[in-house]
Amino acid sequence: MVPTSTRQVVLASRPVGIPQAEHFELRNSRLPSLQDGQILVRNSYLSADPAMRGWVNESANYSEPVPVGAVMRALAVGEVIDSRNPNYRRGELVTGLFGWQDVALVEPAAIWRKVTEADLPPSLSLGVLGLPGFTAWAGLHRILRPRTGGTLVVSTAAGAVGSTVGQLAARLGCRTVGIAGGPAKAAACVEEFGFDVGLDYRSTRFEDDLRAATPDGVDAYFDNTSGPITDAVTRRLAPRAAVLVCGTASIQSWDPVPTGPRVERALLTKRARMEGFLALDHFDAFEEAISELASLVRTGALAYREHTLHGLESAPGSIAMLYSGENTGKLVIQVE
Amino acid sequence: MVPTSTRQVVLASRPVGIPQAEHFELRNSRLPSLQDGQILVRNSYLSADPAMRGWVNESANYSEPVPVGAVMRALAVGEVIDSRNPNYRRGELVTGLFGWQDVALVEPAAIWRKVTEADLPPSLSLGVLGLPGFTAWAGLHRILRPRTGGTLVVSTAAGAVGSTVGQLAARLGCRTVGIAGGPAKAAACVEEFGFDVGLDYRSTRFEDDLRAATPDGVDAYFDNTSGPITDAVTRRLAPRAAVLVCGTASIQSWDPVPTGPRVERALLTKRARMEGFLALDHFDAFEEAISELASLVRTGALAYREHTLHGLESAPGSIAMLYSGENTGKLVIQVE
Repeated sequence: MVPTSTRQVVLASRPVGIPQAEHFELRNSRLPSLQDGQILVRNSYLSADPAMRGWVNESANYSEPVPVGAVMRALAVGEVIDSRNPNYRRGELVTGLFGWQDVALVEPAAIWRKVTEADLPPSLSLGVLGLPGFTAWAGLHRILRPRTGGTLVVSTAAGAVGSTVGQLAARLGCRTVGIAGGPAKAAACVEEFGFDVGLDYRSTRFEDDLRAATPDGVDAYFDNTSGPITDAVTRRLAPRAAVLVCGTASIQSWDPVPTGPRVERALLTKRARMEGFLALDHFDAFEEAISELASLVRTGALAYREHTLHGLESAPGSIAMLYSGENTGKLVIQVE
Repeated sequence: MVPTSTRQVVLASRPVGIPQAEHFELRNSRLPSLQDGQILVRNSYLSADPAMRGWVNESANYSEPVPVGAVMRALAVGEVIDSRNPNYRRGELVTGLFGWQDVALVEPAAIWRKVTEADLPPSLSLGVLGLPGFTAWAGLHRILRPRTGGTLVVSTAAGAVGSTVGQLAARLGCRTVGIAGGPAKAAACVEEFGFDVGLDYRSTRFEDDLRAATPDGVDAYFDNTSGPITDAVTRRLAPRAAVLVCGTASIQSWDPVPTGPRVERALLTKRARMEGFLALDHFDAFEEAISELASLVRTGALAYREHTLHGLESAPGSIAMLYSGENTGKLVIQVE
């Protein structure tokens, strides 16, 4: 039977910096009846991604901030349970921007793709076969383009994006160095994700370890953190190095803009390039990337880790959890 | 008659930061006899360029530091007065890395080019038809590649590089904003070099003026200064902006690395690119660039300004003069 209401997580107040559980609240809403073109999706998994901090903050960003009182913008995967759109049929699995809610009435523009990998877990569409996997693929192939034999460093290397970056870079013939928080995650970089070296940035020896791990300098850096980790990597840049700025996880707030060592001289003397990157700018390559990633997952050539929270009630605290580093894999919320 | 000795400016001690007059001393040296392949050049003009700071500082750079006790590395232009090289004949005008000295015994590798523009002043080979002009040309065409209608900003805009950047960018159809030190140089940007706007960074209204001058943001920034000027421009970056790091004139010393506002979030949200640039990496285009620039000078389409010091004795203080901004054009030293 088609549901007539949905449970939603809405933005209750606008956070400065990292959104906490108290910035959200749960509510029930009646579902209006479907209009022509619309689709009704029952979400099975909701996503928690670092980018969601930017989606709720006031300051200018690449997308309009989620209004206070609105359903939290989020990626999700679920099943079409009703459709007035000839391109989508009941029973099909779809992923897209369906929000933190159990049932979503969606316009077709919100749908990123049909999930056609029936042999693989649907939650992967939020991880290695979704935005994080695509971010790694596009950042590597479209921006960093590391050379065979070069040294690639990635921060938050045990995370959903970083672990994929490392594995794809190794396939390109790079020496890979993963930076993560704590000895367990540093070890996972090597043991689970095949990095040549895993470094714990919390170690007092971190900067020495990084120097030892990059004897010829750093040719490519996939930066998910900014902050002191990035400062240490910047000091190791090799000539013609490329730095991709994908996220700033280590920065609590950008208001006011925090200070750090100036990068101009490092960029100048190394003729290095530093570039901001938003995966969605490369959406034209989405199907190609997901298809390639799915093949690698099927043959066991691409490892991933998930961390599953249960119930819509766990969504509000999930972004803060990501930024604290408590999660041990791609963070997803299973809708019960 | 072929001279048997040369007067030289040698590096007397290694400076930290900006080299001052006291870091150099004058000496006379005997000239050895020419070996096969070598050329003897009588310099008519010596150059003082911002890059020379990097050539004498200890810290890692793109070239080996000038050894203490050696002739100061410098560009110069002069006449071949003796030659044991079939490619160079007495009387020809050449430019290259001949050093701060009146007569230079040079290997052919030190020669950048024969000066073939007999109708133009030879000193231009150190300015608009030399490294500064080429730096502007290559930075603009090879790195920034600004779009027609875009807004280009350049710092040290009344200087040898900046003034050429502005004029070439205007020819590409850019709106051009020049930043310089003091109201006279800001006015010169507009009146002599054709910038749409000239801004004085020393004004207390500088940041407001910059905002007003860049209503649609900054699409391309040719950065010769780093420091607070660059921080202000970074806050104005437009989506997909490109920043070329060519020099860091406003930074007194990079040891230790000074701090400034972090750039990661600006680069990320604008998907902007920041890239270190060394003109010599693009030397393959040198003749093409100089030939194009010479044509523009001949038709009066490219304005330039020179500031001439007289005598080898004025060389030691010339780099400090550049960094103080006291010069009012491309700084050259006429050998008397």
